[in-house]
Amino acid sequence: MEKIQLTEDLSFSRIIHGLWRLANWNQSKQETLSLIENCLELGITTFDHADIYGKYTCEELFGHSLSLKPSLREKMEIVTKCGIKLPSPNRPEHKIVQYDTSKDHIIKSAENSLKMLQIDYIDVLLIHRPNPYMDPEQVAEAFFKLKADGKVRYFGVSNFKRSQYNMLQSYLDAPLVTNQLELSAFELENFEDGTLDLCLEKRIPPMAWSPLAGGRIFTGDDEKTIRLSATLKKVGSEIGADTIDEVMYAWLLSHPAKIMPIVGSGKIERIQYAVKATNLSLSNEQWFEILQSSMGHKVP
Amino acid sequence: MEKIQLTEDLSFSRIIHGLWRLANWNQSKQETLSLIENCLELGITTFDHADIYGKYTCEELFGHSLSLKPSLREKMEIVTKCGIKLPSPNRPEHKIVQYDTSKDHIIKSAENSLKMLQIDYIDVLLIHRPNPYMDPEQVAEAFFKLKADGKVRYFGVSNFKRSQYNMLQSYLDAPLVTNQLELSAFELENFEDGTLDLCLEKRIPPMAWSPLAGGRIFTGDDEKTIRLSATLKKVGSEIGADTIDEVMYAWLLSHPAKIMPIVGSGKIERIQYAVKATNLSLSNEQWFEILQSSMGHKVP
Amino acid sequence: MEKIQLTEDLSFSRIIHGLWRLANWNQSKQETLSLIENCLELGITTFDHADIYGKYTCEELFGHSLSLKPSLREKMEIVTKCGIKLPSPNRPEHKIVQYDTSKDHIIKSAENSLKMLQIDYIDVLLIHRPNPYMDPEQVAEAFFKLKADGKVRYFGVSNFKRSQYNMLQSYLDAPLVTNQLELSAFELENFEDGTLDLCLEKRIPPMAWSPLAGGRIFTGDDEKTIRLSATLKKVGSEIGADTIDEVMYAWLLSHPAKIMPIVGSGKIERIQYAVKATNLSLSNEQWFEILQSSMGHKVP
Repeated sequence: MEKIQLTEDLSFSRIIHGLWRLANWNQSKQETLSLIENCLELGITTFDHADIYGKYTCEELFGHSLSLKPSLREKMEIVTKCGIKLPSPNRPEHKIVQYDTSKDHIIKSAENSLKMLQIDYIDVLLIHRPNPYMDPEQVAEAFFKLKADGKVRYFGVSNFKRSQYNMLQSYLDAPLVTNQLELSAFELENFEDGTLDLCLEKRIPPMAWSPLAGGRIFTGDDEKTIRLSATLKKVGSEIGADTIDEVMYAWLLSHPAKIMPIVGSGKIERIQYAVKATNLSLSNEQWFEILQSSMGHKVP
Repeated sequence: MEKIQLTEDLSFSRIIHGLWRLANWNQSKQETLSLIENCLELGITTFDHADIYGKYTCEELFGHSLSLKPSLREKMEIVTKCGIKLPSPNRPEHKIVQYDTSKDHIIKSAENSLKMLQIDYIDVLLIHRPNPYMDPEQVAEAFFKLKADGKVRYFGVSNFKRSQYNMLQSYLDAPLVTNQLELSAFELENFEDGTLDLCLEKRIPPMAWSPLAGGRIFTGDDEKTIRLSATLKKVGSEIGADTIDEVMYAWLLSHPAKIMPIVGSGKIERIQYAVKATNLSLSNEQWFEILQSSMGHKVP
Repeated sequence: MEKIQLTEDLSFSRIIHGLWRLANWNQSKQETLSLIENCLELGITTFDHADIYGKYTCEELFGHSLSLKPSLREKMEIVTKCGIKLPSPNRPEHKIVQYDTSKDHIIKSAENSLKMLQIDYIDVLLIHRPNPYMDPEQVAEAFFKLKADGKVRYFGVSNFKRSQYNMLQSYLDAPLVTNQLELSAFELENFEDGTLDLCLEKRIPPMAWSPLAGGRIFTGDDEKTIRLSATLKKVGSEIGADTIDEVMYAWLLSHPAKIMPIVGSGKIERIQYAVKATNLSLSNEQWFEILQSSMGHKVP
């Protein structure tokens, strides 16, 4: 599988595995370990976490499995996130949803992620959401300390628009290495509002969350879903794809921004659809056919 | 009171007094002088004007009072604005509302402000509104001349969005020192559209106009006002505030952008609420409780 | 006629002639040649094309006329565009409307424009529309090759917003020289969304397409058209204009961004209205009267 170079000594696999719903898969430690090993065999070496996934439980579940075979750590890149505080039985001190990007919280959150994941360092730590109450100097200090202590190699953001990215970057002594965004043929906001332009301008390959639009494309019965679904099937049959999944992945993969789709499935078959998509190729015309079907109108 | 450093040799008091409605207060010269002296005793050393306030009368009223005790001038920073032309009995030549940022108008307006205020120099002159007809070279020439002549020390803007700020700044030989914006817990536009990000990125502490949302929060009976008002009272009781005013000021003051609220009241009690707020502190959770109450929904 | 300097060795005439509808004018080769010569006599030396105009026929029609008197080439600047693919009997391989900014397509399109126009070089080649599927490295390679081969002197864009412009520019080794935008007293989008600010910030004089709003102003019977039309007539009578056209051109010409209106008419009288407008001048108040009539409300 293709690797995407983020820095001189860091690259991600083109397809990333996401552990967002790990807690819902009801897997034994051994089953999750097998999933991880299956991913690695497919060339998927990058794994995406967040402290809050599964109400603060997914990192720990992953850690349990990884501890069965710690040697796997060096074969993977681990991404996790911080900056959101959710009310949860696991965090009784959180009364309401809130963002927290204080130096103290970022460091504590990253250290807790290390403990839960049973690893010594995080490859990339992301600020999960732009925070209207962010003190960028605090973020810079937290990043500096975590890097100096060898706990985090690189830093990035998620869901940041241009003004938020440029603001935070201006306080940091090293470039943010990625921006994890909602990107799919169904949800075009970041294609349309300049956020993807920013990624290209700054040479930061974006990670794509919800590359299948959270499954809406398979279940929705609204006009847009029906229209887009039909187009995806048509194009799929032209390019030799077996599933709509593959066409949606291929649509992202063929974009020049080096988009890295995050596959959030516990089933190896569905993960394989994404891997298969790396071998599909869309013509310029097919790419626009899908775009215009999603927009519901032609480009001007 | 805390001072906010804008340049090496210019700082504003954290709380600023605004003279927008001076003409409505029906004060004698001596009463206005007392108000000014009361402000100075509270540590409020920065006074915010505009040529157009009170239909072109407020600067003059302030000047009349200041002339009773000219030695006060050196204890304060005076901000005023130019660039809007209002129809008014005092400006019979103005047929319609319009902006004017020509070299000639900026210089004449600043010179007239000096005369009205009975002072020798303006600390900071602001362009009052972004002007779609602005010739940035004319603005640059006006600023250069006013500075060279010792009439204005520094320049800034008001109500400028990112593209407008970056455009004008690219023509100037010195940094704009502030952007005066509508900022309050009620009116979030500049928090949401990237304007406050710009202030942080460019290291320009913003002045906040209508920090109490023009009083709406005390009188409105719409859903948003009722909801936000209740939250402000709840948080106020938690942090030891006596009034909603204090909580709204504290919400702005606790933001890392070094927001400087402009208090536009002629009553010393209300001004004191703002000063008291500088000693209040909000938790991260309380800040988000107010934000989300204003938005009417949780952060994502 | 005033010339607008775009680079050290390239200037455009303030008024540009646009060939968008040449195919609809039903002119003989000689008639089009006369039109070109009439333009040149008026000082209009810049001619605006696109590969797709007239369903891929206008460049060729212009070329036929130019070939009757090839010496005219050196008296004019020729702009053309690429990057849109339209379904057309002349392009049977295009199944749907789509953008294509691949290296291969840009080069082939420019080479075809040279052939159709019967010229040896294009003065400025524009990317016609921002392309959400653009690979900026391919664009950069195409531009580099076309310049190195002497086929295109300079490059620009059309309809690009700020993020799109900044992104593409960051991949190029020479500055984009213009951004062709829809700009008129009727259609204010690019005045309001920061695009014109960008042009001023980057010192790129914009070309204005549809400076008369596509004729809507003469034929529309909606509230906005009636209101704006009345204002244009009123101001026109004040400044000595004979037609609404002249006032709309004058409104653009008086803006400091050095807007270059494209006149897309085959009738010399109408072209003369634009030329006449270069001698009209609007007061600041008149400019805002027209702006506010278009917006339907006063400036704040």
